[in-house]
Amino acid sequence: MTGATARTILRLRLHFAGGGIIGPGKAELLERIERTGSIAAAGREMKMTYRRAWTLIETMNAMFRAPVVESARGGPGVGGAALIPTGREVLRLYRALESGAQRAGAAEIAALERLARPGPPADGDGDGDGG
Amino acid sequence: MTGATARTILRLRLHFAGGGIIGPGKAELLERIERTGSIAAAGREMKMTYRRAWTLIETMNAMFRAPVVESARGGPGVGGAALIPTGREVLRLYRALESGAQRAGAAEIAALERLARPGPPADGDGDGDGG
Repeated sequence: MTGATARTILRLRLHFAGGGIIGPGKAELLERIERTGSIAAAGREMKMTYRRAWTLIETMNAMFRAPVVESARGGPGVGGAALIPTGREVLRLYRALESGAQRAGAAEIAALERLARPGPPADGDGDGDGG
Repeated sequence: MTGATARTILRLRLHFAGGGIIGPGKAELLERIERTGSIAAAGREMKMTYRRAWTLIETMNAMFRAPVVESARGGPGVGGAALIPTGREVLRLYRALESGAQRAGAAEIAALERLARPGPPADGDGDGDGG
């Protein structure tokens, strides 16, 4: 935990004209699939059922012009999964959008933070995510 | 074609260490209270019950060091409500954060939009190019 400002979290969601939404949950899932090579493992890390993780991937595969994840589709524990180019690009762009917004809004975030009541000590909300 | 990027919407939520969240719904409610001078009217415009609108205001009043809205508290249709300085400042900062993020992330938003499947035409000209 570093400093007070590190504890205010900015979350972004991009709502596309076609109805799709990309936000922190889908980005995190893509990131974990890239790292673990498995939809089931990525979902487990996020305390999500395999079915839920797979549904999110299917939503993303349908939302973009090309699929984001390629999978052996064997169900939990079977086969592997990997980000394919569109998935990597979506993740990269989303993370760049996020960090650009953090930088551009640093003054406003700090000012809003000063107006907010101080929180409990880091992780005092018990969810273990530092937030 | 103009307006293609205008159809993708960026939504921001700031999660404070104290557990409070400020996002598009609360900002819109503040804005409508400022314009209408009434929690009930603002809530109605957002298709929200008076109770729901009032709960959001109470949440904000507790989240910041000073209240955001001052109200005659007479219930629906009774008395008026107004943003007080903290409320105006929260709204101003949130809108500035939002527009700064839009500007800073314009290239990423446009790139993600190009990766997304097109939506129904917004301009009604039926060509599906979103313009």
